[in-house]
Order: sequence, then C-alpha cells, then structure tokens
Amino acid sequence: MEYRFATRTTKVKRSFLREIMKATDNPGLISFAGGLPNPQFFPVEALAAASTKVLTQDGPNVLQYSRTEGYLPLRQFISQRYRKNYDLNISPDEILITTGSQQALDLIGKVFLDRDDDVAIERPGYLGAIQTFSMYEPNLRPVPLRNDGVDVAALAETFERYQPKLFYAVPNFQNPSGLSYSAATRQAVAELLQAHGVMFVEDNPYGELRFVGEDLAPLWAKAEDHTLLLGSFSKIVSPGLRLGWICAKAEVMDKLVVAKQATDLHSSYLSQRVLFQYLSDNNLEEHIETIRLGYKQRRDLMIELIDEYFPPEISYTEPEGGMFLWLTLPEGMAAMELFNEAVQFNVAFVPGEAFYIDGGGRNTLRLNYSNADEEKIQQGIYRLGEAIKKMMVVN
Amino acid sequence: MEYRFATRTTKVKRSFLREIMKATDNPGLISFAGGLPNPQFFPVEALAAASTKVLTQDGPNVLQYSRTEGYLPLRQFISQRYRKNYDLNISPDEILITTGSQQALDLIGKVFLDRDDDVAIERPGYLGAIQTFSMYEPNLRPVPLRNDGVDVAALAETFERYQPKLFYAVPNFQNPSGLSYSAATRQAVAELLQAHGVMFVEDNPYGELRFVGEDLAPLWAKAEDHTLLLGSFSKIVSPGLRLGWICAKAEVMDKLVVAKQATDLHSSYLSQRVLFQYLSDNNLEEHIETIRLGYKQRRDLMIELIDEYFPPEISYTEPEGGMFLWLTLPEGMAAMELFNEAVQFNVAFVPGEAFYIDGGGRNTLRLNYSNADEEKIQQGIYRLGEAIKKMMVVN
Repeated sequence: MEYRFATRTTKVKRSFLREIMKATDNPGLISFAGGLPNPQFFPVEALAAASTKVLTQDGPNVLQYSRTEGYLPLRQFISQRYRKNYDLNISPDEILITTGSQQALDLIGKVFLDRDDDVAIERPGYLGAIQTFSMYEPNLRPVPLRNDGVDVAALAETFERYQPKLFYAVPNFQNPSGLSYSAATRQAVAELLQAHGVMFVEDNPYGELRFVGEDLAPLWAKAEDHTLLLGSFSKIVSPGLRLGWICAKAEVMDKLVVAKQATDLHSSYLSQRVLFQYLSDNNLEEHIETIRLGYKQRRDLMIELIDEYFPPEISYTEPEGGMFLWLTLPEGMAAMELFNEAVQFNVAFVPGEAFYIDGGGRNTLRLNYSNADEEKIQQGIYRLGEAIKKMMVVN
Repeated sequence: MEYRFATRTTKVKRSFLREIMKATDNPGLISFAGGLPNPQFFPVEALAAASTKVLTQDGPNVLQYSRTEGYLPLRQFISQRYRKNYDLNISPDEILITTGSQQALDLIGKVFLDRDDDVAIERPGYLGAIQTFSMYEPNLRPVPLRNDGVDVAALAETFERYQPKLFYAVPNFQNPSGLSYSAATRQAVAELLQAHGVMFVEDNPYGELRFVGEDLAPLWAKAEDHTLLLGSFSKIVSPGLRLGWICAKAEVMDKLVVAKQATDLHSSYLSQRVLFQYLSDNNLEEHIETIRLGYKQRRDLMIELIDEYFPPEISYTEPEGGMFLWLTLPEGMAAMELFNEAVQFNVAFVPGEAFYIDGGGRNTLRLNYSNADEEKIQQGIYRLGEAIKKMMVVN
C-alpha cells in the first residue's frame, strides 16, 4: 500500500548516533560512544525498598490514573531544591513532570513551533533536541560555541536576522562538547533574550554533575519570563524511570499541560511514586556526591591516559563536570575515518560531525567517560591512541 | 511578555471532561462521570512482588536507558496473545510499546497528519483522541454511529468526499456509547478502507472486557496493511503503569519508532519490566475474568436500578462489555441542565454533548459503572432518578 505520511517524516532521520551504536554491538569492543550514566551508581536497593513501600502502603492509588501535572510532592521536592541550591523561587505549579527531559523538548515544540519558525541552536548541538524539534519542521539556525559558551556576537546576529521563537542550549557541560557557559556569557544571553523576545530552552541534564569550578545558577534566575528550564532525574538517580521536568511561568505552563494531556495523559505514576519515596527516605545530595566523585575519577584517568598515549597534536576540552570529553584532531584528519580505523582496534567513539547539522566538525570527536570502568578506560584509550598513530603515519 | 505560541495551541482546549471533573470534586457526591477502571481489581500484591523481583534480580539494567521499541519479551507476550486469542500473526517487530494508548494516538498524528489533512471519527467520539489529533490541526469529519457500529453508508460518503488519511474508531464497547461493531460492519469497513486507501486507527482499550456476546477479531485481521491496532494494559492490569502498544506493518513501524524516539526515547522501563514480571508469574486470563465478572455485576445492577427508578421515557444502550452506559433522555430535555440539577442531588455524569464536536447529543449522557461499588450505584442511580423526575415535572 502507498502510505500517505506527514511531510515531517521526511525531515527526521533515524539518529546517526543510533546507527553508530549498531556498529559497536560487538562484545570485544570498548565503546566510549554512548551517553549513558554508569549503572554502578544506580541506587538499586534503595529503589527496590521504595517500590515495595509505595505498592504495599498505597498500591491502589499508585496503580490508578493520576494528574497530568505530575505527583505534587515530587514537584514540591524539585521546587524546594531550586530554593535551597540557587535561592530560586519556582513554585510547584510552575513545574510539570515529563517522561524524561526528552519529552519536555517535544512538548515545547508542540506549544511553540509552527512549520518554518526559526530556532537557534548550539553548534555543535545535542542530537536529541535537533531530532525532536525537527518534527515540528522549523528552520534550525546553528550558532557557534566558544570555550565560555555560545558566541554572543553570533547569537545577537542570529536573533536580529531571524527573530527565532526559541534558543536551545545546554549551558552546563554541554553534550557533545563538555563546555559550560561563563557568568558573563549567561548575563549577555539573558539580555539578548529580553531584547529580542526569544524563549530560552535551558536544558540542564548534567548540571548536578559538577566536580570542579563554581556552580552557577540557571539562566532562569536572570530571565524567568523568557526561560523554559528543564531538569532530569536520569543522570542523578536512574534513566529507566524516565522522569524529568520542565519549569515555566503560568501562561506557558497552561499550554504545556494541555499538550502533555494530549500526548500521554501523564508520565508513569509508578515511576513517580517510587522515585519520590526514594527521595524521601534517602539523602540525594550524598548520592550525587558519590556520582560526582566517580565521574571525576574517570575523567581524570581518561585525560591522564590521553596525555600519555595520544600524539601531542590532539587537543581536548577539560570539562568541569558531566559525562563527555571533546577531542580535536589535527586539521585535515577526519574523525569518521578514525572511527573506521578504531573499530578495527576494538574501540569506538562518536565522530563530531554527527553534531553539526550544517557540516563541519570533521576533525572532532566525543568520548564518554561516565559509563566505563578503570580497566576499560585504560585499554580503550590505549587502543584509540594506537589507531590515531596508525592513521597519522598513513597520512 | 507576549508569547508566540504555535497556532495549534489555539485549536485545543483544556478538555471539557476535565472541567466537568472539577465540578464533581465534592466528597459527598457520587460520580459516574469518570472513566476509571476499578482499583479494587488492581493486582497490587502481585505487582509489588514483581517489582521487588526485577529490581533485586536485574536492578542496574531495569534502571538504565532501554530501547525505543520497548522490552522485547513484553512485545513477544503481546504477539503470542494475539495468536492465541484471535489466530492473528503479528510479529514482535510489528509491536511498539507506548506510554498508554493515548501516546499511540499522538505518534500516529505525528507520523500521518499535516495541517488540514482529513480524519474521519465516530460521532459521538472519544474525547482523548479528538484532543490528541487536534494538535496536528486536521479537519475532523464526524460519522454517525448506529447500534451495530459506524454508519457504513455515511462512512463511504465521507471517504469519497474527503479522502481522509485516517479513520479513528473504538469498535468494542465504544467510549462514550458502549456500542460495538457487528461482524457485518467490520467487513464493510475493511472493504471501504481498502477501496479508498484510508488507514484505520483501531483503538481497543476495552476489547478484553467483554462479558456477554461473541468476541470478534480486530479489523486488523481483515485489512492489516490499512490498520494501526492499538492496545492497552490500563484496563486489564493498571493505568498508573502507563503502558499500551501499537501494531503496525514494517514501513509504518519504522516511522513510528523514529517519532517515539524523538518524543521520549522510550516508555518507563521500570513499568515495562514490572509488568512483564507480573505477566510471567501470574495468570492474566484469570485476572481478566475476575474484572469481567465484577464489571458485569455492576452493569447489571445499574440497569436493574435504572429500570426501577427512572421514568420509562429514558432509554439506554445495553453494552456487552467495557465500562459505560449511554442514556438518551426524551427529545428536548437537555443533559447539561440535568447535570446541574443532578449535582444538587450529589450525583454526576458526563453530558453527551461533550462527545459531539459539531453539536448534537444534547439529550444524551454517559454513565460509568466500572469504578463504583454496589452501594454507590444504589444511591447514585436513585438520586439521578429523583433529579430526572424533578426536571420532567418542571418541564
């Protein structure tokens, strides 16, 4: 049969990343390609205890339909944490529980984007957001990243030229680059948002995973009317629960709730109740500290080994948190070719060009350090060094 | 700030039902307005045991990211059940796990609908579907229901005139009417789908809840290339898990998986694993039999009391399964006015006009019997009878 699909389906491809992952589906291969948190840090026993408790004590309610906005005590918990951590006053009514922060992106697309609207994004940028927004058929306008965050002059020019409805960014330990926005960049972005009436989609899945440097408040603090602040439990508790959230002021929240209701009524109530029980009975801050320490050790080890095994022509970012290192190969050396070589050495990563929607980044690549143990980092970085050296000799 | 929302947000209102529910938020009031399954039949202990088991035995995996398509053994279970129950050959690859069947509707809208495409729907029709599809800005074309299903002549005319991309229907114990499609209607619909190249969205949340009459195979059996078959665990296990599914042939499934990935990566993996463990360790068929019996008793009691307490001018459908009765008041008597009167008597229902997008149904109403105990049905139907009699005297 000749199916009559919507035009949007021609604009969104199966993620390149997903295809890369398939190439790495080999048991002997050490992959730094994924973007997964380390399951070693999932609080398995505490979540098992929480699930027993909620189902035993309140089973019929836990298993029934629930409200679209999400479980109120969970939203109160998130609200209180913003107050405690950043002195931010975000009321539970301004918080909507979503099926991971990925769904927050979808709901924002639904509420804001008509076909051919403009959306400013970072270059390189997070693939998941690019894919989600593409479903709403906007024109994506990439703005380059610098070491201290988005290139403010280029952002101003993009705002001026296209009047985008949204600017999407990951200001802390960005995926893929690991870079973070400085205080000065945040201030400049907030001013631009206000001057041009652009909504900022402030995606912050890794913000809690800072292990060095100074923690900066979300941009919401400077421009709350112009900000949609996203958060996620995926990197600090568990991604399998699929729970994130979105903060928005009342007028926007009203639209988001209608969109959420039309999308799936509400997120898994079992997940919400188990998570809240876990948060009530355990110390989240201590748990996050454990993850931070574990990821810092991995980052430090990976950097140490890169210094040891890689030729000095290879440069890298030194992220202050999060899960990724970003490498730059010598000009003219293609990371895609290195990928093919590396797979021969049984090691994998993501070629950076995957994150550039307009080409570019051919000599860059992303390494994940969160989800690897010490031995894999040792072995994998050694192998990758060998692959690089082989390619450099050939070239 | 002046927000620049997408035009679709002007086309979808907060559900009327939701507003109705607010008016019934009174502790003394007996409500037949909801559409909830009865929590008395949730397998609380078995699900608690299942959650302990999966988290204890496979915690790190249960809590990690998982595949977009859904947990394979769960899809195999669904596939095997179609084979066993209806001799249908639907492979696990043709099944996608969704966050309730509500999300299946959203994904179908995403994959098929461009603005101003036509969609045929039942009249009266399921509000949740109307709301979800409306997000994609189609023209909805209502086709009347008769006692044996959709009016086939009217459907043919609608297909002829508008060439709709989709026809959405609930062939078993429809929401709101409780009506089911006869074998002859199913055959006629299948032929029309094929003749006009229309995709059928076969929503089947209540199909398992048949307590009298003959079980008929899904329309998929007659026109699989033209059918998207939806299913849900909400009415047979628990809605709080938020798990449903969609069956589609490969070419369509490919698009649905990309849309699902862009929407929320995957549905709660905790929910999926707990559900599958429950299904493995318990007898679902026996459990469904218990629900059927419980709902039949409630339906029978409600009908018995309507015969006793209501004036003979009130007619009703006698559903062979599902959760709803559909009442017709005498011509000229408005269910919305009765609703206001009934709330004074501390009893509530949904006025039928809520389910008509083009007006009509003013003298109809929907009663839910699944989620009420015997005493509430006794009291509530008595009160509603009093409210009706009072209004008939006034008129």
